[in-house]
Amino acid sequence: MTTTLAHPARDEIRITSVLHALADPVRLRIVRALADCEQGLSCGVLDLGVTASTLTHHVRTLREAGVVHVRPQGTSRISTLRRDDLDALYPGLLDGVLAARR
Amino acid sequence: MTTTLAHPARDEIRITSVLHALADPVRLRIVRALADCEQGLSCGVLDLGVTASTLTHHVRTLREAGVVHVRPQGTSRISTLRRDDLDALYPGLLDGVLAARR
Repeated sequence: MTTTLAHPARDEIRITSVLHALADPVRLRIVRALADCEQGLSCGVLDLGVTASTLTHHVRTLREAGVVHVRPQGTSRISTLRRDDLDALYPGLLDGVLAARR
Repeated sequence: MTTTLAHPARDEIRITSVLHALADPVRLRIVRALADCEQGLSCGVLDLGVTASTLTHHVRTLREAGVVHVRPQGTSRISTLRRDDLDALYPGLLDGVLAARR
């Protein structure tokens, strides 16, 4: 069975939800990793030092805010950054966040 | 008596604190108003629909994150946006946030 995951359309994305989703060190590390990996990746491969259920929670927060797109692939879920949507809605925001060294 | 308010130095500002501070509709309205008013203003003049104590809390959150600078002026406190610091640390971020229509 394929689970279809809900994603906000571009015009449903809200800045406060995006900022909240990004305002967490673990989620920020996920976003940085995805920014370096255009084809997407299973966040489970990242060494984030959190449990699987915590990781699931973080990825869901990013997905529901419109920051990442998640597609099932076999038993994995592949996440990609919604860079086009974020750059169109908030030009500069993502680059500014990714430029942050701290 | 002059109350000196604590502000993080530029190199003490952290992206997660800035994003958290911005991820609130009232605080975002304060930031938008300050972006339009370079000389700064007393946030009490803004019609934000919140109590004085709630406003104080929001301004403190912005100040402690390094988003605004607050200086006492008589019985008021004048807030200014720390645009130079934010633009230097996170180029594009503030413009992206201010560009947001939703």
